[in-house]
Amino acid sequence: MQSMMKSLIISEPGKMAIAEMPRPAPKADEVLIRVRASGICGTDVHIYNGGFTASYPVVPGHEFAGEVVAVGPECSRVPVGARVAVEPNVPCNNCPECLRGEHHFCRNMIVPGVNRSGGMAEYVVVNERGAFDIGDLSFVEGALVEPLSCVVHATERLGVGWAEHVLILGAGPIGILMGRLIRARGAARVDYLERSPGRLARAAAMGLGEVYSSSGDIADKVYDAVADASGSSALVAEAANRLTRPRGRVLVFGVPHKSGQIALDHFRIYREEISVIASFTSLKNSIQAIDLMKSKTIDVSDVVSHQIKLSECPDYILRMQAGDGDLRKVTVTDFTN
Amino acid sequence: MQSMMKSLIISEPGKMAIAEMPRPAPKADEVLIRVRASGICGTDVHIYNGGFTASYPVVPGHEFAGEVVAVGPECSRVPVGARVAVEPNVPCNNCPECLRGEHHFCRNMIVPGVNRSGGMAEYVVVNERGAFDIGDLSFVEGALVEPLSCVVHATERLGVGWAEHVLILGAGPIGILMGRLIRARGAARVDYLERSPGRLARAAAMGLGEVYSSSGDIADKVYDAVADASGSSALVAEAANRLTRPRGRVLVFGVPHKSGQIALDHFRIYREEISVIASFTSLKNSIQAIDLMKSKTIDVSDVVSHQIKLSECPDYILRMQAGDGDLRKVTVTDFTN
Amino acid sequence: MQSMMKSLIISEPGKMAIAEMPRPAPKADEVLIRVRASGICGTDVHIYNGGFTASYPVVPGHEFAGEVVAVGPECSRVPVGARVAVEPNVPCNNCPECLRGEHHFCRNMIVPGVNRSGGMAEYVVVNERGAFDIGDLSFVEGALVEPLSCVVHATERLGVGWAEHVLILGAGPIGILMGRLIRARGAARVDYLERSPGRLARAAAMGLGEVYSSSGDIADKVYDAVADASGSSALVAEAANRLTRPRGRVLVFGVPHKSGQIALDHFRIYREEISVIASFTSLKNSIQAIDLMKSKTIDVSDVVSHQIKLSECPDYILRMQAGDGDLRKVTVTDFTN
Amino acid sequence: MQSMMKSLIISEPGKMAIAEMPRPAPKADEVLIRVRASGICGTDVHIYNGGFTASYPVVPGHEFAGEVVAVGPECSRVPVGARVAVEPNVPCNNCPECLRGEHHFCRNMIVPGVNRSGGMAEYVVVNERGAFDIGDLSFVEGALVEPLSCVVHATERLGVGWAEHVLILGAGPIGILMGRLIRARGAARVDYLERSPGRLARAAAMGLGEVYSSSGDIADKVYDAVADASGSSALVAEAANRLTRPRGRVLVFGVPHKSGQIALDHFRIYREEISVIASFTSLKNSIQAIDLMKSKTIDVSDVVSHQIKLSECPDYILRMQAGDGDLRKVTVTDFTN
Ligand SMILES: NC(=O)c1ccc[n+]([C@@H]2O[C@H](COP(=O)([O-])OP(=O)(O)OC[C@H]3O[C@@H](n4cnc5c(N)ncnc54)[C@H](OP(=O)(O)O)[C@@H]3O)[C@@H](O)[C@H]2O)c1
Ligand SMILES: NC(=O)c1ccc[n+]([C@@H]2O[C@H](COP(=O)([O-])OP(=O)(O)OC[C@H]3O[C@@H](n4cnc5c(N)ncnc54)[C@H](OP(=O)(O)O)[C@@H]3O)[C@@H](O)[C@H]2O)c1
Ligand SMILES: NC(=O)c1ccc[n+]([C@@H]2O[C@H](COP(=O)([O-])OP(=O)(O)OC[C@H]3O[C@@H](n4cnc5c(N)ncnc54)[C@H](OP(=O)(O)O)[C@@H]3O)[C@@H](O)[C@H]2O)c1
Ligand SMILES: NC(=O)c1ccc[n+]([C@@H]2O[C@H](COP(=O)([O-])OP(=O)(O)OC[C@H]3O[C@@H](n4cnc5c(N)ncnc54)[C@H](OP(=O)(O)O)[C@@H]3O)[C@@H](O)[C@H]2O)c1
Ligand SMILES: [Zn+2]
Ligand SMILES: [Zn+2]
Ligand SMILES: [Zn+2]
Ligand SMILES: [Zn+2]
Repeated sequence: MQSMMKSLIISEPGKMAIAEMPRPAPKADEVLIRVRASGICGTDVHIYNGGFTASYPVVPGHEFAGEVVAVGPECSRVPVGARVAVEPNVPCNNCPECLRGEHHFCRNMIVPGVNRSGGMAEYVVVNERGAFDIGDLSFVEGALVEPLSCVVHATERLGVGWAEHVLILGAGPIGILMGRLIRARGAARVDYLERSPGRLARAAAMGLGEVYSSSGDIADKVYDAVADASGSSALVAEAANRLTRPRGRVLVFGVPHKSGQIALDHFRIYREEISVIASFTSLKNSIQAIDLMKSKTIDVSDVVSHQIKLSECPDYILRMQAGDGDLRKVTVTDFTN
Repeated sequence: MQSMMKSLIISEPGKMAIAEMPRPAPKADEVLIRVRASGICGTDVHIYNGGFTASYPVVPGHEFAGEVVAVGPECSRVPVGARVAVEPNVPCNNCPECLRGEHHFCRNMIVPGVNRSGGMAEYVVVNERGAFDIGDLSFVEGALVEPLSCVVHATERLGVGWAEHVLILGAGPIGILMGRLIRARGAARVDYLERSPGRLARAAAMGLGEVYSSSGDIADKVYDAVADASGSSALVAEAANRLTRPRGRVLVFGVPHKSGQIALDHFRIYREEISVIASFTSLKNSIQAIDLMKSKTIDVSDVVSHQIKLSECPDYILRMQAGDGDLRKVTVTDFTN
Repeated sequence: MQSMMKSLIISEPGKMAIAEMPRPAPKADEVLIRVRASGICGTDVHIYNGGFTASYPVVPGHEFAGEVVAVGPECSRVPVGARVAVEPNVPCNNCPECLRGEHHFCRNMIVPGVNRSGGMAEYVVVNERGAFDIGDLSFVEGALVEPLSCVVHATERLGVGWAEHVLILGAGPIGILMGRLIRARGAARVDYLERSPGRLARAAAMGLGEVYSSSGDIADKVYDAVADASGSSALVAEAANRLTRPRGRVLVFGVPHKSGQIALDHFRIYREEISVIASFTSLKNSIQAIDLMKSKTIDVSDVVSHQIKLSECPDYILRMQAGDGDLRKVTVTDFTN
Repeated sequence: MQSMMKSLIISEPGKMAIAEMPRPAPKADEVLIRVRASGICGTDVHIYNGGFTASYPVVPGHEFAGEVVAVGPECSRVPVGARVAVEPNVPCNNCPECLRGEHHFCRNMIVPGVNRSGGMAEYVVVNERGAFDIGDLSFVEGALVEPLSCVVHATERLGVGWAEHVLILGAGPIGILMGRLIRARGAARVDYLERSPGRLARAAAMGLGEVYSSSGDIADKVYDAVADASGSSALVAEAANRLTRPRGRVLVFGVPHKSGQIALDHFRIYREEISVIASFTSLKNSIQAIDLMKSKTIDVSDVVSHQIKLSECPDYILRMQAGDGDLRKVTVTDFTN
């Protein structure tokens, strides 16, 4: 008789419930993980809303960590008992994008929580290639490997020069991580622009630089680089059109509205050699993300604001849907209740 | 008694005339050049129109070559008798931009033809740092060093990968040079988009790839990179929003209208990691431009369409102002008539 | 009854013979190729000599192209009938090196001709990930994809600046290809150093630059970069210690004796900021290599000097072992005799 | 009557004395600085020994900071009263190396303390282009701008990847700074190899990683990069031949004996794609060095071990010549005694 397990199932847009379902079994190159921490991401809310294409019904969750409890016969790297974080996007290694090394644009990507069962369950199966040993890190830290690896990739796309002055647009959990990473990459100063007063205060408390509640408050200062973690098209345009020095760079990272337009001042872009650079998910950055936490290069202790039970997950998805500003990263850590 | 010389003088926007003026004398770190070839650039037309800030009255001309006939006492590199091309932009080496190696953004740039007397005269004085030996190249080729060095810089900004497929927007003289340089940098194929039928035919004849008269004709193909040599904001936007592959790059090089806006599809930029990169003038590329001509890496023989007398220069400036499509690069080669 | 096929088998170092063996069958993610051209490489000679670790008995051959005649059920990209070149090194995508994108250092590499049956046979099986459509290229050209991709990778490792002057050490078939690629990447000039008079004459005939029969003949000239395709430790040292300009780069590409030492002048390396850079096989360069041939960016028509029968292969391996200078690339094109 | 000032003069190798000499006057593009802190560098010892070519008699000292007390009429950036650090190497901007942007290889470099009077005096004249505002930094910190800028340049040459593991050879003052900079650039861990027990203990106390007293103690660990701050040819060779992972990089930074040879294992360099990269002085890194101190990215408080009087300078030069291990950076801060 096959064992059963608890999971969160989004059966179709707008419908979710905790349910019992059979515990999955790993294929030859897969591992079975007992999930110990699984973060709720904006994408999960989009999947619930129907704004992001998923294979319904789906168990959401693509930011998770846990313990390996079984491995398929072709696995070689990750043993039973390993504590692992999961890089959810597993590329095919055989499409044109994979074949030129741009695996994060794989045409045949398999993603737990999107097109196969994800981490909001007691157990999950992933390809061994997506499982990474986290050593002594906590599982809650492990569940941050995915978002942190996106930010690592972002800094690689943007490039950070020694002693640069950088402005971050948006001081949500991701903006906070990005500022810390940019500072840890050798920037002299990181300023923030954020409209939520509470978040602005938290950003100010980090002491990385100045904070502004409106771009109008940034009078004459220009930056070596501006990184967007707000998704605002207007702010990205203002960054390129006004807030950067000659040769400055603007990073497009925040996810915008589908119809958002960045209205670039063409003459200024040309005359000042401004670059607009984008960053999408990550590209082989999980090991770096783990090492940055292990080596205490990056502090992530304040990113997770709530540790919850699986049964509370629907409630929190609804609160995130409603835009509750008190939530930073919400992480399921109890999967049996 | 000081010798006199013929020159073209733009006394104020809308007024130009051939006049006699005293032959200039070089300062300690300057060289006196007898001009032998001097190209008319769109910028000269703008200076005539008043659309580009110059120190009126001004002798225009910043694309020129000639023979060194006298050198100041502190000169060490360029001897009397040398055949030289001139890099017009001479930076101060002492402002913030110069001090971080971005000399083309010098705040105190001295530019013959813009804020001191330029090359549309029998003689001109330039700082020795801006004079480069052209060896056996013709003076007409020497007068192409400045535009070619801009295109060299453009390819460095854009980056060209082995075997890439690149689309050039605009098949004017600069677009033609850019396509050749991109091909000579290892691209497998260079396509053109150009609305002028004559220019499109010339581009097709080069045999570097396909040519299109309208972006609507480019159905499914996407490029590794698109380089703009048209100045059209709409085309640059379309390049970023539709004509590039994931991770594609768009080069902003053509000079747009002052009020032009590039309307980027924010979501696509993010989701496909599109980069928009700009290129302005050149940065230490004159020696490379000369070597590319000397080594026959780049063919420039068809760029100059007209070799004229100094006295004809006003006429040609007016024809260029009127948008005469038959003119490619017009070069003054006779300065005594 | 399983079909049989002809193949060359090296049963142990020093022993090789043509033999009949069963035609292999593809696994789920593999394709069966009817080999149409298969080049003999120095590595094959080393495998025959025992100087390169292989899984004896082995069918050698890792530079080959042919027609796909069957595909496993999980294959998706390469159809039956496709004309393909093969990238022999198929990485695991799951070891530390693969996981940081350095697939050519995979710890579990599968290589036809080395640790599984290779291309010196009528048929061969390869993983679909290593099969690349060659379109209209000839199979003989297809068999050059592997060596050409190594040289593409070499130019990426070395970096080639616009209008650079480069010296190639060794004008064997690989040195010739390397000079052409470096020129096609924007170098102004490529000189050669080669001791074999015949090869020196061929290099001179290409017209890319000067040729020298001894480094002693290179008196005062220094290069932006020197690329080794000779394997000589003494030449590589001389390149770094004498033949490069300040900031010059030296590429280690030729395979040296196991005990070879490069004796660098430590003070000069430091004082002149010389870089020594190495290049080993290739990293996702097969598609580029194919496109460089298709687009006629690189001429390879003179690389193959002999097209032979499979039955002649042992003789040619022995001739190569003896150092026959008349042989450039020897390619088996008739597998039934 | 011209004012006189105290200075240290090395009249010829082996002869030095404190002497009165006329206070210099700045030329048009120069500034007069009242020196407030001036560090003794190994190069000063070499100039005393005659092992480094200088224009004897010479006032040594090229690591210094002070107050601007007069400026020439062509100066524009640095006002009287400014607190400045000095970048000693002032390039000509007109030789082949300067013209390709490699100003630190200028053929006509002017260097206070080497070929003109330097900082071991009450006053010194430097070109305005070499003077950089230090704001609130102390003058002792200002005197560290020169060595720190060399280390900044070194990290740019080496490149530091996110979360890399780096080994530093030599834990002298420069090795200590280098480790801190590499960590501040995003490395996860910095280990040290140093034979002096006292220095090893200080390195261990920084807590950046492991410390080793002999390379023999580093058994199986391999590094992403190894940076030499010891000058030992044997260690650099061992770094390349054994202590690096595939694709590892070795930085040549320490100044070796003139006859030192790095004996590279040619086969390993090739097979593992090891890079050997060198770094010489700095290239436009002074502003970065100042900003890294101002922003407290780098702690330099323990680098200066002794603040001395000008009159003590000869004694300390002799102690450094004798190899006194207790001395870290010795800085003259009292110029009137
Ligand atoms: N590129 C990738 O791979 C990647 C990966 C992960 C996340 N992301 C994206 O990165 C962004 C940041 O993530 P997050 O979790 O930190 O999101 P978040 O919690 O929504 O934070 C965004 C912050 O930006 C602020 N903001 C938005 N518009 C603003 C404006 N016009 N002026 C001032 N502040 C403004 C928001 O304030 P309010 O709360 O008042 O709106 C909010 O505090 C999101 O768009 C996310 O989707 C991208
Ligand atoms: N970045 C730099 O440093 C730098 C340096 C030099 C030059 N430039 C700029 O580079 C551009 C090219 O120079 P050029 O001398 O070759 O100029 P050009 O002769 O004006 O060529 C531009 C070409 O683009 C075509 N074009 C414009 N809009 C188009 C559209 N919507 N669809 C199709 N074709 C279109 C034009 O056709 P029509 O003739 O029909 O308008 C023309 O043939 C100019 O903008 C120039 O100012 C920049
Ligand atoms: N890094 C990689 O991934 C990779 C890939 C493919 C090939 N390779 C290596 O690349 C090298 C070139 O390949 P190939 O097929 O062209 O080899 P090749 O035919 O052996 O050519 C090497 C040439 O260098 C000449 N040479 C050797 N020592 C010399 C010296 N001291 N002075 C002057 N000339 C000297 C040889 O002359 P003689 O004939 O007189 O000896 C020969 O003509 C080989 O070492 C090969 O193993 C490396
Ligand atoms: N590239 C540049 O632009 C640049 C700029 C500034 C400085 N430098 C050079 O950088 C190096 C470091 O400067 P520094 O001021 O820190 O010099 P330092 O005080 O001489 O420190 C070098 C350290 O390396 C140790 N060491 C030498 N050989 C060793 C070996 N075989 N095994 C273990 N440890 C060894 C020395 O130990 P002992 O004391 O026992 O010998 C010493 O502690 C010097 O060579 C300096 O000239 C280069
Ligand atoms: Zn894929
Ligand atoms: Zn300037
Ligand atoms: Zn692998
Ligand atoms: Zn110079």
